[in-house]
Amino acid sequence: MTTLVFGHKSPDTDSTGSAIVWAWYLDHMGTKAEARLLGTPNTEALFVADRWGFTLPEIMADVADGQDCVIVDTNNPAELPANINNANVTAIIDHHKLVGGLETKGPIDITIRPVACTATLMFQLMGGHGGHAPEGIKGLMLSCILSDTLEFRSPTTTPADKQIAEKLAADLGINIPDYAAEMFAAKSDVSRFSDAELLRMDSKEYNVGGTELRVSVLETTSPKIVLDRKASLMGSMPAVAKEDGADQVLLFVVDILREEATLLIPNDTVKQIAEKSFGVAVSGDTVVLPGVMSRKKQIMPVLKM
Amino acid sequence: MTTLVFGHKSPDTDSTGSAIVWAWYLDHMGTKAEARLLGTPNTEALFVADRWGFTLPEIMADVADGQDCVIVDTNNPAELPANINNANVTAIIDHHKLVGGLETKGPIDITIRPVACTATLMFQLMGGHGGHAPEGIKGLMLSCILSDTLEFRSPTTTPADKQIAEKLAADLGINIPDYAAEMFAAKSDVSRFSDAELLRMDSKEYNVGGTELRVSVLETTSPKIVLDRKASLMGSMPAVAKEDGADQVLLFVVDILREEATLLIPNDTVKQIAEKSFGVAVSGDTVVLPGVMSRKKQIMPVLKM
Repeated sequence: MTTLVFGHKSPDTDSTGSAIVWAWYLDHMGTKAEARLLGTPNTEALFVADRWGFTLPEIMADVADGQDCVIVDTNNPAELPANINNANVTAIIDHHKLVGGLETKGPIDITIRPVACTATLMFQLMGGHGGHAPEGIKGLMLSCILSDTLEFRSPTTTPADKQIAEKLAADLGINIPDYAAEMFAAKSDVSRFSDAELLRMDSKEYNVGGTELRVSVLETTSPKIVLDRKASLMGSMPAVAKEDGADQVLLFVVDILREEATLLIPNDTVKQIAEKSFGVAVSGDTVVLPGVMSRKKQIMPVLKM
Repeated sequence: MTTLVFGHKSPDTDSTGSAIVWAWYLDHMGTKAEARLLGTPNTEALFVADRWGFTLPEIMADVADGQDCVIVDTNNPAELPANINNANVTAIIDHHKLVGGLETKGPIDITIRPVACTATLMFQLMGGHGGHAPEGIKGLMLSCILSDTLEFRSPTTTPADKQIAEKLAADLGINIPDYAAEMFAAKSDVSRFSDAELLRMDSKEYNVGGTELRVSVLETTSPKIVLDRKASLMGSMPAVAKEDGADQVLLFVVDILREEATLLIPNDTVKQIAEKSFGVAVSGDTVVLPGVMSRKKQIMPVLKM
């Protein structure tokens, strides 16, 4: 049976790239494997796949009972196919907090490390094999790391992320600032997406004291493109929340270059969450949060009602 | 803050020994750490600790909010302190299936591998450090592996378990068959325990189609000592089940030397479970299951009602 390798729903660069990377590695080590996607990747991931010569993996709606699979870049059943607990998960490689809910039939390989990026951990797990990977695979690993660390600006960045990215860039003859700027420009090109698509593009569900929050992040080098649409985005929030079973949508527009986030304030509940969580005074329909770039490290841990 | 390292409730040799081993390793690498126990260890673990010159770690009733801790040999919240999800878990090292339910506050180090023993995985994670560990630590690692693999007889045994145990034994000048026989004799010395204590000594809760089973295993080189008490053990099952919120108690007496298990049949429900799960015809109050030695590999996966 071919092992299917996939990341989370609403695939970003790391979930798309590291699934392709690990499928290559399994194949390289003698296990037939193919990457899959759980949805259409974001514009940065599309740019990256194209840049390094990969056609996009097939999009998969669910997994069959007993299907061999490897989960990368998540351990959250809410971000995985509905039937995941009936599949045969053979390994999990991730860098997120353990959320619980995922079960395996027997003991399997699970490696979770507090690095910024799944591809960093994969490079480590490959031992020497990462160093003689084909150019395209190295390019994907580099792209995943630059994406998840926002070119080493995010506080999630560890020395391992930076060191491995720099080694890969050197092998490939890539200038990191130039290449990262290209990637971020691709990510910022969101004009063709509807408001609802933008709100769901990079979004995680999070329960705070019984309230279900959809915590959405848009990382961009052109925040103006998104903020010019703020009235329309806020107008779409109630419908998106209702459809997704959430109570509120929090949209953080992360300015990669200025290293700050702007949170949209559609109502008094979100205003209260912003003030309590970030210790700021909110007036108007947005609030700037200097230095905030990481949902994992700077948003999720402080959110309160 | 001192990091506390502990395994599961009803500690066996691996949960006791590998907690001491990892606390030593953390200390050795510059993180202040101490092992703890979540109950009185079994007789084999007591023998092993004494044999290698360790005083038993302190028994702990619960963990405080925010306490730094490392969990070894389990990832099951039911086998951990009640307050575990409010502690600061910094790492999990385990070789069991992912059961779900444990949550961490942020991304942490989690390593789960399908080897027979936590100490095997620890030896691998230590890189070169395992090789220059003090004699007592090497002795614990060897003991954990011999215990969990039943001296390499259990089908959970992997080449890594065997190879590392043999390396440790050679370093220590230990004859494996002689030493394992001493360990198993210690484990078989159960005469001083009450029926209820024996039923809970090495026991895991398992839900099969809505029925809560307490699946207990006694590994022994002297099955007669236990089986001579079968009437009394079966008489104690209803009270133990009731107290623990279980519907049935399954007691498997594993004969380490003959490589078989004897399941006690206290009633028609357990008789039916035995016949459906193991494809045997049951008459009388026990049934012998040839080759069955591992709860994880040969009992849990086949149990049905």
